[in-house]
Amino acid sequence: MKHQIDGDFGLPECGDTIRHALREDVGWADITSLFTVPEDAAATAVITAKEPGVVAGLGVAAAVFEAVDSDIAFLASLEEGAVFESGAALCTVAGRARSLLSGERVALNFLQRLSGIATLTRAFVDRIGGSDARIVDTRKTAPGLRALEKYAVRVGGGFNHRMGLFDAVLIKENHISAAGGIAAAVAAAYQRASHVVTVTVECRTLDQVRQAVEADVDIVLLDNMSPDTMREAVETYPDVSMEASGGVSLDNVADIAATGVRIISVGALTHSSRALDLSMILSLQHAG
Amino acid sequence: MKHQIDGDFGLPECGDTIRHALREDVGWADITSLFTVPEDAAATAVITAKEPGVVAGLGVAAAVFEAVDSDIAFLASLEEGAVFESGAALCTVAGRARSLLSGERVALNFLQRLSGIATLTRAFVDRIGGSDARIVDTRKTAPGLRALEKYAVRVGGGFNHRMGLFDAVLIKENHISAAGGIAAAVAAAYQRASHVVTVTVECRTLDQVRQAVEADVDIVLLDNMSPDTMREAVETYPDVSMEASGGVSLDNVADIAATGVRIISVGALTHSSRALDLSMILSLQHAG
Amino acid sequence: MKHQIDGDFGLPECGDTIRHALREDVGWADITSLFTVPEDAAATAVITAKEPGVVAGLGVAAAVFEAVDSDIAFLASLEEGAVFESGAALCTVAGRARSLLSGERVALNFLQRLSGIATLTRAFVDRIGGSDARIVDTRKTAPGLRALEKYAVRVGGGFNHRMGLFDAVLIKENHISAAGGIAAAVAAAYQRASHVVTVTVECRTLDQVRQAVEADVDIVLLDNMSPDTMREAVETYPDVSMEASGGVSLDNVADIAATGVRIISVGALTHSSRALDLSMILSLQHAG
Amino acid sequence: MKHQIDGDFGLPECGDTIRHALREDVGWADITSLFTVPEDAAATAVITAKEPGVVAGLGVAAAVFEAVDSDIAFLASLEEGAVFESGAALCTVAGRARSLLSGERVALNFLQRLSGIATLTRAFVDRIGGSDARIVDTRKTAPGLRALEKYAVRVGGGFNHRMGLFDAVLIKENHISAAGGIAAAVAAAYQRASHVVTVTVECRTLDQVRQAVEADVDIVLLDNMSPDTMREAVETYPDVSMEASGGVSLDNVADIAATGVRIISVGALTHSSRALDLSMILSLQHAG
Amino acid sequence: MKHQIDGDFGLPECGDTIRHALREDVGWADITSLFTVPEDAAATAVITAKEPGVVAGLGVAAAVFEAVDSDIAFLASLEEGAVFESGAALCTVAGRARSLLSGERVALNFLQRLSGIATLTRAFVDRIGGSDARIVDTRKTAPGLRALEKYAVRVGGGFNHRMGLFDAVLIKENHISAAGGIAAAVAAAYQRASHVVTVTVECRTLDQVRQAVEADVDIVLLDNMSPDTMREAVETYPDVSMEASGGVSLDNVADIAATGVRIISVGALTHSSRALDLSMILSLQHAG
Amino acid sequence: MKHQIDGDFGLPECGDTIRHALREDVGWADITSLFTVPEDAAATAVITAKEPGVVAGLGVAAAVFEAVDSDIAFLASLEEGAVFESGAALCTVAGRARSLLSGERVALNFLQRLSGIATLTRAFVDRIGGSDARIVDTRKTAPGLRALEKYAVRVGGGFNHRMGLFDAVLIKENHISAAGGIAAAVAAAYQRASHVVTVTVECRTLDQVRQAVEADVDIVLLDNMSPDTMREAVETYPDVSMEASGGVSLDNVADIAATGVRIISVGALTHSSRALDLSMILSLQHAG
Repeated sequence: MKHQIDGDFGLPECGDTIRHALREDVGWADITSLFTVPEDAAATAVITAKEPGVVAGLGVAAAVFEAVDSDIAFLASLEEGAVFESGAALCTVAGRARSLLSGERVALNFLQRLSGIATLTRAFVDRIGGSDARIVDTRKTAPGLRALEKYAVRVGGGFNHRMGLFDAVLIKENHISAAGGIAAAVAAAYQRASHVVTVTVECRTLDQVRQAVEADVDIVLLDNMSPDTMREAVETYPDVSMEASGGVSLDNVADIAATGVRIISVGALTHSSRALDLSMILSLQHAG
Repeated sequence: MKHQIDGDFGLPECGDTIRHALREDVGWADITSLFTVPEDAAATAVITAKEPGVVAGLGVAAAVFEAVDSDIAFLASLEEGAVFESGAALCTVAGRARSLLSGERVALNFLQRLSGIATLTRAFVDRIGGSDARIVDTRKTAPGLRALEKYAVRVGGGFNHRMGLFDAVLIKENHISAAGGIAAAVAAAYQRASHVVTVTVECRTLDQVRQAVEADVDIVLLDNMSPDTMREAVETYPDVSMEASGGVSLDNVADIAATGVRIISVGALTHSSRALDLSMILSLQHAG
Repeated sequence: MKHQIDGDFGLPECGDTIRHALREDVGWADITSLFTVPEDAAATAVITAKEPGVVAGLGVAAAVFEAVDSDIAFLASLEEGAVFESGAALCTVAGRARSLLSGERVALNFLQRLSGIATLTRAFVDRIGGSDARIVDTRKTAPGLRALEKYAVRVGGGFNHRMGLFDAVLIKENHISAAGGIAAAVAAAYQRASHVVTVTVECRTLDQVRQAVEADVDIVLLDNMSPDTMREAVETYPDVSMEASGGVSLDNVADIAATGVRIISVGALTHSSRALDLSMILSLQHAG
Repeated sequence: MKHQIDGDFGLPECGDTIRHALREDVGWADITSLFTVPEDAAATAVITAKEPGVVAGLGVAAAVFEAVDSDIAFLASLEEGAVFESGAALCTVAGRARSLLSGERVALNFLQRLSGIATLTRAFVDRIGGSDARIVDTRKTAPGLRALEKYAVRVGGGFNHRMGLFDAVLIKENHISAAGGIAAAVAAAYQRASHVVTVTVECRTLDQVRQAVEADVDIVLLDNMSPDTMREAVETYPDVSMEASGGVSLDNVADIAATGVRIISVGALTHSSRALDLSMILSLQHAG
Repeated sequence: MKHQIDGDFGLPECGDTIRHALREDVGWADITSLFTVPEDAAATAVITAKEPGVVAGLGVAAAVFEAVDSDIAFLASLEEGAVFESGAALCTVAGRARSLLSGERVALNFLQRLSGIATLTRAFVDRIGGSDARIVDTRKTAPGLRALEKYAVRVGGGFNHRMGLFDAVLIKENHISAAGGIAAAVAAAYQRASHVVTVTVECRTLDQVRQAVEADVDIVLLDNMSPDTMREAVETYPDVSMEASGGVSLDNVADIAATGVRIISVGALTHSSRALDLSMILSLQHAG
Repeated sequence: MKHQIDGDFGLPECGDTIRHALREDVGWADITSLFTVPEDAAATAVITAKEPGVVAGLGVAAAVFEAVDSDIAFLASLEEGAVFESGAALCTVAGRARSLLSGERVALNFLQRLSGIATLTRAFVDRIGGSDARIVDTRKTAPGLRALEKYAVRVGGGFNHRMGLFDAVLIKENHISAAGGIAAAVAAAYQRASHVVTVTVECRTLDQVRQAVEADVDIVLLDNMSPDTMREAVETYPDVSMEASGGVSLDNVADIAATGVRIISVGALTHSSRALDLSMILSLQHAG
């Protein structure tokens, strides 16, 4: 079932994350439902949007309810990544009323957070309209939720930067200083890293950009530069992949994209996105 | 050491959460530092604020660096919960340069998130100034991080609502409907729940409030009511604990507090707080 | 299936506990069955009581066999919580003979222990006959099995006290001493604990009871008092919830209930209950 | 430190079991101690016996307090396995008052249970006085605690039977039936099991004993036989290791030992032992 | 399904091992397949041998694919333990192309390793042809894979030695020295170990063999002796189980078996076996 | 300490792997040492080579003994990665005799395996002498041990290929077929993968090489080509990174390196390396 509702964005395996979240919220029992709702009460519930956005995490929500009670039926009303208006139904779940109530909060916590990230990502993507530049995420994610949050970025139309410290080299000021300069740092990285790993150098000045290009790095990261400086870097080295980073906002992202950089990394996608406002509306079923 | 830097707010055990976050970010190695920073390079780093706020998570940050390399020294510059200005130093870490760089992002991710929650909580608390009302959190937390996020609320001057579905009864509309009315739902809860558990009923109308009070509940939750309606509820039943909930913002919280409710629960504390802007500035040490 | 055999007592999630118990007992293989029983031998087995009691844990036993071999069929002969006589059949399992033999001991270990607790609880409940008092458990449980043992107390007609140190405040002598008296300890607890948390004070004298009542605690625990003293406490403060604790046995529980206390906590329910005597009788099936 | 307080009985690694027990009991915080005991309050506590017995689990108790707060000092007053009278001090712990209170219940739960098993084991051992027979345990242990409970049996002067289904062959009635007789079952076991594994056959009649001996088993288990029948088995095959099993109690164990069997397995050691009555008495320390 | 494809060799529970291996290899996604293979592409794949051997691990491979995608169909072409020629098909899997590709390497890593061990074991077994001696494994296994590797030894026609340090006593030179001689060491072991545990003594000289036999050990291990010396030991004590160990190779195993020892332990089975050369050939299915 | 003995090769965090290996081997106790070695016996042990090689895993061995008993002292005699002769001492451990014996096998299993991989890697590296080509590993590693085995490759002078399916795109025949050709597959990968990820295409013919180069891939993998064909590919596209793969052995690796390829991937490094022959020689210490 998962395969049919995660679209084609590559939902990562998240069974342990879901089980942990359920243990954290439900604990030994949802005592309110246990003590007030009849064991055999059945219900249908619809998760509905109270503001417009982009949906991400339908497969996670389905897996949450599946983990609570494998008899719950889950039906997505939208495709993963769809844009919706306020009031839209995202999905419907049906089964034991107790189980629906016990899974509600965890399912919503995932769905609101991931949809919030996808929605903000989509807003950034939309701002740079016809540009070829990519909106990419950073490592500023909630501890324990990185793979899911980076998935939400993809759902929102963005792209991923490295997943962690292990899968790409990103040489920053301190590494340069420790290694004795850009050329030395880049040489050390190429000499020792796997041949499948790329090397990026974070540059604060055009002189650093020059050094990085001369060291033949794969990507030059332009750190907190003005659009004019970025444009100059791009025009000077038109064949080099350039990444803009630092202080990117919805207000300035279009200007940044207009400089010709190919990659724009935005920490706000994950560190400052809001949970989208969703709610679950439940209808008890009455025997005839 | 932990005991000296978590103030008196009850930092929960979070060793597994920290190890998981490090595995997620560092993976098999911080390849940039491994390949560009000499093994024996030492450094000192200061975590500094780029905006004002309330610090929360110093004990977590210390534990992150301890987990990366037990030889790192950690020195807090502020007490947990202190208010600071932009530019303030929060803490200093010293040790192997590689280890400091490898732990930087995870330590910051925790510290930024928790300080963001504490800062927003403090803003709500400040808005209701001399009021006796409490600002409390909800279950709208990041999956896997609930105990830490609720800790940050305490650090910011707020209070906790229930930790999950297991430690308090909160009867909502669906439970009422399933049980056959407020009186029946409350009676069922009192009949079956532990005697140490409290019962709250979520009410949308004054008539529901009346029913809840007649059922002798511990707390009446006033759900999405106007301040006038809330005031009427409080004045009608001055001896009953009343909780305001739904749509609470920095703009309206003072008005809500003025109604006389004792508890104001604010989902935004955790679902819409931003990561506070912090950064780590590192200085390599050079042998004489 | 679990839902149909755990009655309505709130069987907690216990998959990890079951898997751990199976690893502990079965290890890499049940070598006796592997080496002496043909792979394709089928059998039916009945779990039978060798003494009277109250059945608790049918859902756990079913889950044990399910974890050993998902092809095993499990059929409960009694409802969870039913009283049975010696010789009664509790449930029937059918499937591969090897699988039934491999799961037998773990299933019985759970079922005997939980039924033993339910049976002892029921004995206490029966002793206090028409009383309104509740028999409640304590935290004196087998490490790792608390939620299951407290479930068995509910199955036996008892009620739960707090689940752990996290979900209710229980102020004992040492806390009083450290805080500087009952009034100070209670005030500190109410000032800092969540509003959904109740506060109990353990009292050894009527003077302490008076102080606790004046501090407006939720529950007064009468610790190791004589029935006469308990009755005096109850009569002096008829509106206060009183809990009797300490040295409660089948011999004196009726006298204690007669004092008018509402709650009687009994450590023996879990720390001194015996495993009920159950056995599994297996019949091999022979091909025609 | 562990090495100095577990005597020479082979305390198994139990760090995960202890951490799990603490999570179960303490959860996110010991809220009573957190809210009523000053953070810097120090105390000394003595664990004292309220009935006579044999002490087992001092190393576990020490590890519990170590896990709660590594600054707690633990001092054993007795050697593991020592016999003590009512009122005896078992050990002393000193450190932060909060930490001592938070670890108290879990430490006691382990110590009471293990000492209860050791005490009951010692009672069985004492009953068979000068006999060469061994008192051994069974697999009827609390799920998750087998290695610790079998350790307590050793501490009490007993011996271990197999640890689980994986380390010895024990052919029972159903295996015999499935294999087509005792000779066939034993032959199959010897043919396929590791050469380091022993084979026991459970026999209900002297004829079965004869068959087992003729099949050259390592141990013959005499299941629920009368002492006279057991004696006849022993006298008929004086060179064969015989194990008595089934219905062994303090009342009949001496008669069973007198039959000449070498091994007496007693399920009651672990399935029906009581927690020994211990308590922790704490003294707050006051600054001069 | 597992039951039908692991033959009767006792495949141990290995779900955690498989999930760990998948996390290690697949991580957050098989990005090549995710980005280049259409989500709805279906395929059939055959795992084929590129050299002759003995197949072991079909049940593990099936479980790997099941863990990747429960919709994959797995069909074994051979029985576990079958001898095959180069070019033989071992099994066929069918389902989503992405899932087959994502599980390929982990399934092959298990199957190649286990089949390599089974193949080498079979070679040793074949060399000692009509002998009654057993080829047995050692503890020289890949960390984390012991139960699976010992399973593969059984599949290849070998037998298991002890599983670890916990299930049999094996007294080596250092134990003898620490205990004060063979007699003392053996006596101590018999006095304290479970009666179901066997005792083996490792001997380097015939004099040590004599001492071990006089101490009535269960098995005498002849360590690194010449065939002539081993034969002399066997002939001197024809009723004692003798195990040859040390430096056993395909070249000398027949000579060792001819000495009359009953057990020949071969570290090479697991520490020096090669992964068998297998590959998976996939055919995409095209819609008509 | 770890930092001083892992050289500069980036030993990955492996605490869980070590604890798992110890549980697997030691279980509830090393019963031989427990029952035959006095608790207070002290000893010194030296791990010695019985054949020449390259040492890898000293830090792992140290961590194993640390996990068994934190009082054991570990002293490396060689630097990680050092070449040694038969008879060389690798390291010395000192402490309780029981603890040394209990940790011996697990420490050796890691050290033998990792040193075996490093030794074989060094042999390949030595064969290609003055060449600029790199010897790199593959994903054909023991399940659960990948990060450690790839570490051993680095220690032996080799380099790493991708760590798993998640950190680099490697387009093989099936992906090409599913995507509709090399150009389409490469375009899809570049379009969707992170900009920090490289793309390799596996080619079997020079025509495929041409297509891959025209698609502007980062690396071209020459799969099972003859040296002559490889040389032609290299000479035709001298600026493209070329990787040789398939059937690489010590016999042909020099010829392959001579073709001018920059990368030579060798599955045998991990799938067919032997455990190096090491042993631990222990000396008991006797009190004066």
